[in-house]
Amino acid sequence: MIYLDNAATTKIFPEALQAYCQTSENYWGNPSSLHNLGTKAHTVLDKAREMIAKQLGVATDSIYFTSGGTESNNWAIKGTAIEKRQFGKHIITTKIEHPSVLQSMRQLEMLGYQVTYIAPNKEGVVSAEAIQKAIQKDTILVSVMAVNNEIGAIQPIHEIGAILEEYPAIHFHVDAVQAVESVREVLTCKRIDLLSLSAHKFHGPRGVGILYKKIGKMINPLLTGGGQEKNLRSTTENLPGIVATAKALRLTLEQTNNMISLRDELWQYLEEEDNIKIFSPKDGAEHVLCFAMHGVRGEVLVHALEEEGFYISTTSACSSKKGVHSGTLMAMNVPDDFAKCAVRVSFSKDNTKEEVQALIKALKDLKHKFAFLRK
Amino acid sequence: MIYLDNAATTKIFPEALQAYCQTSENYWGNPSSLHNLGTKAHTVLDKAREMIAKQLGVATDSIYFTSGGTESNNWAIKGTAIEKRQFGKHIITTKIEHPSVLQSMRQLEMLGYQVTYIAPNKEGVVSAEAIQKAIQKDTILVSVMAVNNEIGAIQPIHEIGAILEEYPAIHFHVDAVQAVESVREVLTCKRIDLLSLSAHKFHGPRGVGILYKKIGKMINPLLTGGGQEKNLRSTTENLPGIVATAKALRLTLEQTNNMISLRDELWQYLEEEDNIKIFSPKDGAEHVLCFAMHGVRGEVLVHALEEEGFYISTTSACSSKKGVHSGTLMAMNVPDDFAKCAVRVSFSKDNTKEEVQALIKALKDLKHKFAFLRK
Ligand SMILES: Cc1ncc(COP(=O)(O)O)c(C=O)c1O
Ligand SMILES: Cc1ncc(COP(=O)(O)O)c(C=O)c1O
Repeated sequence: MIYLDNAATTKIFPEALQAYCQTSENYWGNPSSLHNLGTKAHTVLDKAREMIAKQLGVATDSIYFTSGGTESNNWAIKGTAIEKRQFGKHIITTKIEHPSVLQSMRQLEMLGYQVTYIAPNKEGVVSAEAIQKAIQKDTILVSVMAVNNEIGAIQPIHEIGAILEEYPAIHFHVDAVQAVESVREVLTCKRIDLLSLSAHKFHGPRGVGILYKKIGKMINPLLTGGGQEKNLRSTTENLPGIVATAKALRLTLEQTNNMISLRDELWQYLEEEDNIKIFSPKDGAEHVLCFAMHGVRGEVLVHALEEEGFYISTTSACSSKKGVHSGTLMAMNVPDDFAKCAVRVSFSKDNTKEEVQALIKALKDLKHKFAFLRK
Repeated sequence: MIYLDNAATTKIFPEALQAYCQTSENYWGNPSSLHNLGTKAHTVLDKAREMIAKQLGVATDSIYFTSGGTESNNWAIKGTAIEKRQFGKHIITTKIEHPSVLQSMRQLEMLGYQVTYIAPNKEGVVSAEAIQKAIQKDTILVSVMAVNNEIGAIQPIHEIGAILEEYPAIHFHVDAVQAVESVREVLTCKRIDLLSLSAHKFHGPRGVGILYKKIGKMINPLLTGGGQEKNLRSTTENLPGIVATAKALRLTLEQTNNMISLRDELWQYLEEEDNIKIFSPKDGAEHVLCFAMHGVRGEVLVHALEEEGFYISTTSACSSKKGVHSGTLMAMNVPDDFAKCAVRVSFSKDNTKEEVQALIKALKDLKHKFAFLRK
């Protein structure tokens, strides 16, 4: 089995799973309890937060734990909307965001907010100028992803940040769920107020997300209650999951190899095939490659490759089962004929050159098979 | 070490932790993925949902997974508030709810909703009639807990349900996080529309909650996005946590022993001591006993017992660190002098008669020690 669907989810690192188990067994007190089982658990929680902050190069007090990328995005967006409702109700985002952002916007529209959706260029990249032009007096939030999950296009976060320097009252949120590899670099943009991550995308556990929130920037809580996470995100802390996340993030960011050579090798092959079209921009994120084999529907190619032992996906896991076409490709004005043939290959650092070569061989064979079938 | 703080959190069952690990290793695909790693994961997810529904005696399609009791409560309440905002903005709850309910109400008040908080009697029980009297034309939700977390008082859910039979448009939500032992019986009240549970209260993992939602009753999502959980609660499913939860719930509900004899034995001792006052009602839930040793502050008693190896808490884990007094005792009009001395002992089925006898001995010794110190 060769797993090339790492943008959908990754396998948890054995070390992270072990950290989960050890924490479950040794630090199972409620961090809010007065007795020393609670105190010990709280110390471990503080330590995990500190480790993560250090890895990201931000202040410990700016790290909050959630239940995933979706909650981090929902909280950043809805929390800003509630917090700033007296100041304005206009939000700017893009047409290529993950559904957890787009559907949050839809819900806010239903509640009386106004949202501007910026279209990308045909490479899948939005322009900072387009965002600047969309700013109104009552704009309270700009939310743009760092790396698109369907094609891997890298968005100009630093440029947008530079523009927003002149609008200090606008919250700037970045969905960095697909940008773990470059998250430190992204966070050198000091104008970012809020940034989302999801542990299961970097070999951490399911059900744990991170929200970076710049100290001093306020958002309303989404989950209110007992007052955990500095009164901004209540619930008994998922300590085993949090410790496992800290471990996984460290291991991920400490790995020195990258996936560029894997992507380059696949790219080179795809580019040579005249019936294959690549949708990912050449300078996209190193772990994602989205393309189509002309005339072969995405699902068909996914299943054909599966029979050969390769696991890839149509453009995103969320939409794949529902037969929905890729929102990103639609926003890029890719003709429907092509869009429905799109598939996504996404690497992790565990993938090897040999695996990519095997995939290329399988694609070549399938190309002939499909050509033959069409005759 | 004798752990008697099970209302704060419980230790995960070894079998549940094992289920977590096995699922992490064997079913780590994204349930939304098209390929068979996804399909297999989805099958396991369906199975876990089915198991839980069966344990609870409800329809499989009425079970939703969340990140904990807090999210289940927040979602039930805010999801109803958004869903029914066109019909009305009045909500009825009680003064003795968990902060995850009370703070959700506060946030809704800030957003223009109106909330009636019913006071309990001096036993900590609210009356169904008081709730009936509070119903207005624009009431959209009644939210009452099944078992109070601070003193274990059982609320008249069936009676409230009977009253609400005449008001079919009002959503009826029950926080059953402290009522796992009786949850099947609670759910025989067919008028309940929404019911919350939290896995870590029944030896399941942290960060997993359940929301029962009656089929056909609508609430707006709190976490919008990729469309998981029938489009009502998005995020990549925490499959290992969900499978571990199903396991823990089954083990909990299949255990045939109960904690009544433990509670009775402690009760008998406490009742005999003239400087001890019991706050829990005699017919309260079997796992909680709340009392005060006159003149000894709760924190002092907690720490003194800790030195003897007993882990208990002041009235709730959430409030304990903040030095906040018990909301339930305040609502019962317990004088401040007494309330600040309150402590909570909470059992799990792993606790033994011998442990309770040891606790009684320790309490006797401490009583003499404190009396001596006061001289
Ligand atoms: C860009 C992006 N944002 C958000 C998410 C949501 O993350 P999660 O599944 O942890 O909720 C995903 C993945 O599903 C994603 O790719
Ligand atoms: C009655 C009650 N409701 C809700 C909760 C919240 O549960 P969780 O900590 O899983 O969010 C608790 C426990 O903390 C509780 O006792």
